Amino acid sequence: MIKHYLLSPGPTPIPNEVALAMSETMIHHRTPQFNHIFDQARQGLKKLFGTKNDVLILASSGTGAMEASVANLFSPGDKVLVINGGKFGERWLNIANAFGLSPIELEVEWGQAVKVDTVEKQMKAHPDLKGVMIQASETSTTVLHPVKEIAKLTKNGPLFLVDGVTAVGVVSIPLDEWGLDVLVTGSQKAMMLPPGLGFIALSDRAWERTKHAKLPRFYFDLNLERKNQQKGSGAFTPAVSLIFGARASLEMMQREGLDRVYARHARMSRATRAAATALGLKLLAPDSPSPAATGVYLPDGIDADQVLDYLRDHMNITLAEGQDQLKGKVIRIAHVGYMGAFDVITAVAALEMVLRKFGVELPFGKGVAAAQEVLMESLV
Amino acid sequence: MIKHYLLSPGPTPIPNEVALAMSETMIHHRTPQFNHIFDQARQGLKKLFGTKNDVLILASSGTGAMEASVANLFSPGDKVLVINGGKFGERWLNIANAFGLSPIELEVEWGQAVKVDTVEKQMKAHPDLKGVMIQASETSTTVLHPVKEIAKLTKNGPLFLVDGVTAVGVVSIPLDEWGLDVLVTGSQKAMMLPPGLGFIALSDRAWERTKHAKLPRFYFDLNLERKNQQKGSGAFTPAVSLIFGARASLEMMQREGLDRVYARHARMSRATRAAATALGLKLLAPDSPSPAATGVYLPDGIDADQVLDYLRDHMNITLAEGQDQLKGKVIRIAHVGYMGAFDVITAVAALEMVLRKFGVELPFGKGVAAAQEVLMESLV
Repeated sequence: MIKHYLLSPGPTPIPNEVALAMSETMIHHRTPQFNHIFDQARQGLKKLFGTKNDVLILASSGTGAMEASVANLFSPGDKVLVINGGKFGERWLNIANAFGLSPIELEVEWGQAVKVDTVEKQMKAHPDLKGVMIQASETSTTVLHPVKEIAKLTKNGPLFLVDGVTAVGVVSIPLDEWGLDVLVTGSQKAMMLPPGLGFIALSDRAWERTKHAKLPRFYFDLNLERKNQQKGSGAFTPAVSLIFGARASLEMMQREGLDRVYARHARMSRATRAAATALGLKLLAPDSPSPAATGVYLPDGIDADQVLDYLRDHMNITLAEGQDQLKGKVIRIAHVGYMGAFDVITAVAALEMVLRKFGVELPFGKGVAAAQEVLMESLV
Repeated sequence: MIKHYLLSPGPTPIPNEVALAMSETMIHHRTPQFNHIFDQARQGLKKLFGTKNDVLILASSGTGAMEASVANLFSPGDKVLVINGGKFGERWLNIANAFGLSPIELEVEWGQAVKVDTVEKQMKAHPDLKGVMIQASETSTTVLHPVKEIAKLTKNGPLFLVDGVTAVGVVSIPLDEWGLDVLVTGSQKAMMLPPGLGFIALSDRAWERTKHAKLPRFYFDLNLERKNQQKGSGAFTPAVSLIFGARASLEMMQREGLDRVYARHARMSRATRAAATALGLKLLAPDSPSPAATGVYLPDGIDADQVLDYLRDHMNITLAEGQDQLKGKVIRIAHVGYMGAFDVITAVAALEMVLRKFGVELPFGKGVAAAQEVLMESLV
């Protein structure tokens, strides 16, 4: 097998157009030339985040942007509700604990979305909550949580912090319209960039809250960043080439049209689910799947990690593994970012072939055919 | 559709590794540094051409290398036999005519390979032949001609000039072992490079013939090139970045192993033929197919050119068209160069989808399944 297919939910493939932009001649970041590029990226991000407010660009991973939100919005001992339905739910919890907050954990079964009325019940039980944290798309379980509905509950209550790492650019998640208070993402997902940038936007009331938040911060001081990013390129050295790339990828997304970007992800996700179902495979998130990736249980007796190793080492295809209790049981096929119809076809055809190789009896082409039926919708 | 798939028989896709090599800092061509790179490319080419003789690198297309062979080997009025079974057979004829040779045309039905005994009969009818010209792989008709067998006939007779443009690097075609007198190719095929380089190797007796050939030549003076390429980088300015790329692509081929490169092409070709047959489509070259590309007749009433336009403009997939009398009737799916199993899957799945779109009733996944059965062979 000669070509490599990166079908993991981050890092995701980089379009040539973006790679070429990142190869442009290095320039100094305290110049009008760079400020102009930086500002274009900022404008593109506002559209993507659906906000009139600033979207700050941080030289960090997405986790850095999550930490920034905690450090800028809370004070020691603040009570927060953490909706934890996977590895990234755990991450909110770990950050909250590391910063001395008092998190209430709302555990959600892996593969399920949180129920809105359960959140409501918890909010009533804890009227002193200062924040609610969630993933819009929980990458580890391929679940989409009901962020829009929960935002209605937090409207006049605790701040609502949304990890949008595999949601922003995958589904419509407008910060202003839905009334979210924090939305963060990272560069190596739907932004079609290498890892290295974190992005964060705050609502007006979240900005107001920063004035009273007593947790320590320096590198992630969002007021300092906002002031410096509005007039230039931020307080500290920005990741210049990644920002060249961000401008290019945002331009690509705008050219495709955000609605079409979202429709493409939704279609790839539906096609992959249809394929898995046609092959008799159980879905990890049957009820509220994220269009970022599709989790699929492999048949009993098949070690999913061995299958993934074989796909990577013999078929040159990188899919993602199951984590913790899902380890060895599921595979995750990503759709996020620079992916198209024939990535779905490749993933499904490869899955059929590798399962046959591992002794599973299945008819070739059956999953592919189910995917094709869905993918045909784009041919209008 | 977001990604573009170039599945045409030249230009072919460029591996990132090769693109990066071509992006290396420009250096001067009259330096020991460049001579070293040039020499490494030359050594790799000798293995690819199966010859102990020089393989000359020309800044030209493959047609330039074809012309060079004629200009260096013949004199005005020389009688040559041109085996013409497609667009590139015609090209030999056009070059021969342009240089004032007296070509005898052996017409071959498009889609068929020339019969060895027909060549033998022509050679007997024209004992004064100075050369025989052929395509190893006739790209326009996706046919593989019996070069090895014809070389046995020409051994002590006329020079045997082989256009190897979509054969070198696709099938084993060793110049020395088979006793060919000229073998040429271009960079934009199995060499996985952009267009811009022509390659040519001559047998000992062909080099001997150059001494007596009276046709005029300057840019394509192969003795001048040989002398200069042995001690440096050629008589005229070489295409520096393409030669950086050639070194990288030859290195990739050697790493994969030439036998495995040939097996990969053969497998992709068989898989595509199996898919077309499963879909009830007629093959353009059923009896002697070239592994470089698979020509497929579309069902009656379907305009193949409209199908190709739709594939390119709506599905982002470039396949090749039929030429002259095949125009509108066939499509050609290429396998040459940087192509793998999932390019076949993509091409076949896309063909199923576009045919459905054009009103052809066919079951999705049937062609894909047939291809998968063949492609499984590589998973050992």
